[in-house]
Amino acid sequence: MPEKVNYYVGEQSLRFPREVYITSSASVVGKKEGEGPLGKCFDMVCGDDKFGEDNWEQAESTLQKEALALAMGKGKLKPEDIRYLFAGDLLGQNIATSFGLMDYEIPLFGLYGACSTAGESLSLAAMCVGAGYAKTVAALTSSHFASAEKQFRFPLEYANQRPISATWTVTGSGAFILSGKRSRIRITGITTGKIVDMGVKDSMNMGAAMAPAAANLIAQNLEDFKRKPEDYDKIITGDLGYVGQEILIDLLKRKKIDISSVHEDCGILIYDKEKQGTGSGGSGCGCSAVTLSAHYLPMLEQGAIKRILFVPTGALLSTVSFNEGQSVPGIAHGVVIEQEGERES
Amino acid sequence: MPEKVNYYVGEQSLRFPREVYITSSASVVGKKEGEGPLGKCFDMVCGDDKFGEDNWEQAESTLQKEALALAMGKGKLKPEDIRYLFAGDLLGQNIATSFGLMDYEIPLFGLYGACSTAGESLSLAAMCVGAGYAKTVAALTSSHFASAEKQFRFPLEYANQRPISATWTVTGSGAFILSGKRSRIRITGITTGKIVDMGVKDSMNMGAAMAPAAANLIAQNLEDFKRKPEDYDKIITGDLGYVGQEILIDLLKRKKIDISSVHEDCGILIYDKEKQGTGSGGSGCGCSAVTLSAHYLPMLEQGAIKRILFVPTGALLSTVSFNEGQSVPGIAHGVVIEQEGERES
Repeated sequence: MPEKVNYYVGEQSLRFPREVYITSSASVVGKKEGEGPLGKCFDMVCGDDKFGEDNWEQAESTLQKEALALAMGKGKLKPEDIRYLFAGDLLGQNIATSFGLMDYEIPLFGLYGACSTAGESLSLAAMCVGAGYAKTVAALTSSHFASAEKQFRFPLEYANQRPISATWTVTGSGAFILSGKRSRIRITGITTGKIVDMGVKDSMNMGAAMAPAAANLIAQNLEDFKRKPEDYDKIITGDLGYVGQEILIDLLKRKKIDISSVHEDCGILIYDKEKQGTGSGGSGCGCSAVTLSAHYLPMLEQGAIKRILFVPTGALLSTVSFNEGQSVPGIAHGVVIEQEGERES
Repeated sequence: MPEKVNYYVGEQSLRFPREVYITSSASVVGKKEGEGPLGKCFDMVCGDDKFGEDNWEQAESTLQKEALALAMGKGKLKPEDIRYLFAGDLLGQNIATSFGLMDYEIPLFGLYGACSTAGESLSLAAMCVGAGYAKTVAALTSSHFASAEKQFRFPLEYANQRPISATWTVTGSGAFILSGKRSRIRITGITTGKIVDMGVKDSMNMGAAMAPAAANLIAQNLEDFKRKPEDYDKIITGDLGYVGQEILIDLLKRKKIDISSVHEDCGILIYDKEKQGTGSGGSGCGCSAVTLSAHYLPMLEQGAIKRILFVPTGALLSTVSFNEGQSVPGIAHGVVIEQEGERES
């Protein structure tokens, strides 16, 4: 038996008994994301948003399949090298994940945390490797603009108007290989979120619904690890967008925490608001995942930044709960990712 | 750092660095389940299947809320004693879970594995406690006949006919408190399932869709832990029903494994087929969870049985995937639960 050390930190955070690294990752996106500011960073941009499939759901499945294939390829891994998959998506009953990952024949933990699933999957994958439960695992998530519109809002053919507070669901999937094998990028801790419900009932304003959960999570992470915002080079939320970012910064200022100089949001970065007509910004499980893989991990690898707090945010609703008049509660999961410096040994 | 022992066993199984116990559990069910053969074993039977709420989804949320409250109460725990919740349900975007557990303000990992979620939640909860990531966590799942019919099949008012291969979704929630604190019931290992697709396309015959996944999981568990079927007092599947049980036993016989003398199925146990008109048996995330809590854990506690393999089974589909002509793949997750004997110390 190991020594009786516990690994929890403060109220909601963890460190790991063993070192956990992100040894490779990959991003696959659709046409619109390829035309955005990060377009050149993604591993694969597909001109056909159906990815050669018959329908949007299968297209999203293909996104996950391709992202995992690329991430494994970069790590020179075969499916049998991966002990577990931690994966999810936004669709009812996680069908993009089930049908996308089936052929790999890898034990699967299916996850649902709305758009926070990118953080949830990385957290559980890191807990797994950090405990010595596996040498190598993969965490991945996806979203697709068209399958999400069909799932949550209106058929595309209806061509509904969108308020400027609405976000644009990213067509994309990000996959991450986690392992105990040393690399330049290490996950050093996680902070796991609670559901926060401030009574927002507008499914066209997800940023406002999710910002309170992000604010609580960030404040808790700083308290648990006894850090100040500046101890992170960047605090990166998933898909709050312009509307949510403003609320987040305000909420934290009321707690005497100023993250304005280090905060960035994947939903804001991924599209050009003016040229692409994407409203408040990008959203979806895929948004934060592809931005982490294509934009932030290379910066960590190159040493341009040393430590980030990655906080994917989720809005917990379904069309059923929405139509029954329920609010849209939020949840956020935080992952601390650091550049692994030079070290003696 | 702990010693560099790895905890994986064989291809798909794990043991834990630290001992993991189920310290308390609770079951809450609806009227029909209360009238079934296990009726007297459940902690709470509610005569009103709406549980005092306005709609079926909120009723299911109330099931989870009550089950967790009872399990905490039996363990003399407050919400702040529980570090994580591992929970899920069958509804799109896990809304029964989100709205049911929100008020507890406990960090949440939302899970989706169809009816296998009962096994997935116990697995991840055990991995968490077993690694020293938390002193106490809770695993819970729910299903509700009416919310599931609405989600997957037809409105109740339509009064559709049901083939005899169809299962009856259990209205119920089972909650389990896992902790490192010694009790009479210990989780000693898990086996995590892969998705298995045999091409079944009949959403009214879930047993057939799930049986191959259960067969693979059970065979793998026996191989990984180097056990024979008789090394378990019972091998318990979640909700294969009569149709699925037959297929399971046949499939395993082809692998030269005979589980017929030790196999039981929660879906078969929970209803009286003749008197209750429940077709092939019970199903749903709640089926295996309430049966484990109300029927099997007391048997383990009293020493009537010493070691079980608990294998909740899930059918991965949504109305969207079904209507698009996709098959219904299955998945199963196995949990080894043992009576903790007397011990010196």
